Amino acid sequence: MRALVYHGKEKCGVVERPKPTVSAPTDAVVKLSKTTICGTDLHILKGDVSSVQPGRILGHEGLGTIESVGTSVSMFKPGDRVIISCITSCGTCAMCRRRIASHCTTGGWILGNTIDGTQAEFVRIPHADASLYRLPTGADEDELVMVSDVLPTALECGTINGKVRPGSSVAIVGAGPVGLAVLITAQLYSPSTTIVIDRDPERLEAAKKLGATHIVQSGPTTVQQVMEITEGNGVDTAVEAVGISSTFELCQELIGVGGTIANLGVHGGKVDLHLEKLWDRNIAIKTRLVDAVTSPMIIKLLETKKLDAKSLTTHTFHFGDIESAYASFKAAAENKALKVVINF
Amino acid sequence: MRALVYHGKEKCGVVERPKPTVSAPTDAVVKLSKTTICGTDLHILKGDVSSVQPGRILGHEGLGTIESVGTSVSMFKPGDRVIISCITSCGTCAMCRRRIASHCTTGGWILGNTIDGTQAEFVRIPHADASLYRLPTGADEDELVMVSDVLPTALECGTINGKVRPGSSVAIVGAGPVGLAVLITAQLYSPSTTIVIDRDPERLEAAKKLGATHIVQSGPTTVQQVMEITEGNGVDTAVEAVGISSTFELCQELIGVGGTIANLGVHGGKVDLHLEKLWDRNIAIKTRLVDAVTSPMIIKLLETKKLDAKSLTTHTFHFGDIESAYASFKAAAENKALKVVINF
Repeated sequence: MRALVYHGKEKCGVVERPKPTVSAPTDAVVKLSKTTICGTDLHILKGDVSSVQPGRILGHEGLGTIESVGTSVSMFKPGDRVIISCITSCGTCAMCRRRIASHCTTGGWILGNTIDGTQAEFVRIPHADASLYRLPTGADEDELVMVSDVLPTALECGTINGKVRPGSSVAIVGAGPVGLAVLITAQLYSPSTTIVIDRDPERLEAAKKLGATHIVQSGPTTVQQVMEITEGNGVDTAVEAVGISSTFELCQELIGVGGTIANLGVHGGKVDLHLEKLWDRNIAIKTRLVDAVTSPMIIKLLETKKLDAKSLTTHTFHFGDIESAYASFKAAAENKALKVVINF
Repeated sequence: MRALVYHGKEKCGVVERPKPTVSAPTDAVVKLSKTTICGTDLHILKGDVSSVQPGRILGHEGLGTIESVGTSVSMFKPGDRVIISCITSCGTCAMCRRRIASHCTTGGWILGNTIDGTQAEFVRIPHADASLYRLPTGADEDELVMVSDVLPTALECGTINGKVRPGSSVAIVGAGPVGLAVLITAQLYSPSTTIVIDRDPERLEAAKKLGATHIVQSGPTTVQQVMEITEGNGVDTAVEAVGISSTFELCQELIGVGGTIANLGVHGGKVDLHLEKLWDRNIAIKTRLVDAVTSPMIIKLLETKKLDAKSLTTHTFHFGDIESAYASFKAAAENKALKVVINF
């Protein structure tokens, strides 16, 4: 089969690889129909993720058709159409029973990381029963592939972790795919004020179309503008969707008394926490790796058209052109790219 | 009347002052029976709290008898015995209605800060109806004066903010009065493991007597010892009860996946937050200034002997000797001092 393989820092390419087979009773092999590229894949290419070794097939998102299953897989059979979760979950370890599947002791984020991933014609999925979801009929498949990662990440790590609630105020710092996905999922909880902050006017325009009540171009007056919008109170929820120290510090300046900072960014270094200003502000700072426990909820929302994630996909490629897809996603701002869907 | 007055950095003393009078319809004037000294009073003396100006009567803890009330005070009358909350609360502003009384728009922590406090024979209490509690009969008054601040601070900012729950593991960094009060209040929620960490063997011994399942003297092997106790998982709750960067960083090393760091320390500067290690650990960091919303619960617990806070008081002085009480509390470690009660 053909697969996109990581060859070390800044190097990847499509190569021929043996088709994976069922190697444990709980495995399924899935023939991919669609995959996509995550910001995390770009981090891997930069050499930031040391667990990913050269030779690894990349990708942790996708949907397709079950090709074969192990003897103890009970929920799926060959021919079933499925969504692959970025989080592999045994469903029975102590962490899975706490619904922290991201830290499953024999799973978690392993696809395209410590085992071969979904940017290939076929992929082996361990713990298939708890790590795959049945593809509903009648929903848009370009939207459904967003259930693999970006939508549950936005919902769990941003909206739910940030305690977005009816009537509340939310600031989202960073209007990339995951920031915009937070904006979409936050609206499930009917906040009154949604402020999206980014450097890029195109992305801010996209945020406006997706329902942001306010957009603010980042600059020296960002804090002042947010304070004017919130009548000096700051926001109830600040979502950090970039992953650098300055945006995390901006969240600390925007958060109101009793508010919650939800961190989504993947941070490469320590950040300054201004406890001298925040120790008495009754705030929470929350981190989370997606557990994908909301995937069934999101599938239901897409199936019943209560969530519209179509605008997250801006570009579509055939798998043969995946290297161009990477190039397009890398230069996302100049290409006005958000999520890039790859068809097989 | 006699009152302890702040004269500027490192200077305070007992002076004669006019007795306070009711100046708003919601005021009460209370004749003090007992007061105590808080670590925050020492911060004020160090010049750390810029809102406290020379000439201010210190103190935000105490109990006594109502001397007079304003025309709109409906819950109390002269002669009633009351506990004074460190938090003054109007009960009706937006923050009070959110139960964040610490940020009451006309109250919060003002006693011994922006208005005269309780280290005096009489004190004026604004918003008396929502800021005083009726003194129950039959409970120890040295314990009841701990309801003013240290017990609700420990319960709300440590135990509740830290989500202590049955069967969980708790590490308390710092075994001063507030750290030990966290240890006492944590046990209301039946954790399985309570680890107290401090430099001072005497305070660790006190922690052991108050029910700590483990004590750890802080040093190069602290993290390793806690990991051994928790079988490599880290703790569910880490309470920072010191207020310096290194103890806050220690909490980050001790916290387990899905855990909560509750900050109680009053921090004078920024701290390092290791998001590069914590972004994917599903943790929460929480700050809070006590709202004193649990004061009625604590009074009930003391009244029914379900909470024993007697051991928090180690020294008793007469008000005439309050300057010696300060000296004793300042050199707390060498005097084996925890809370110091002052009688009038």
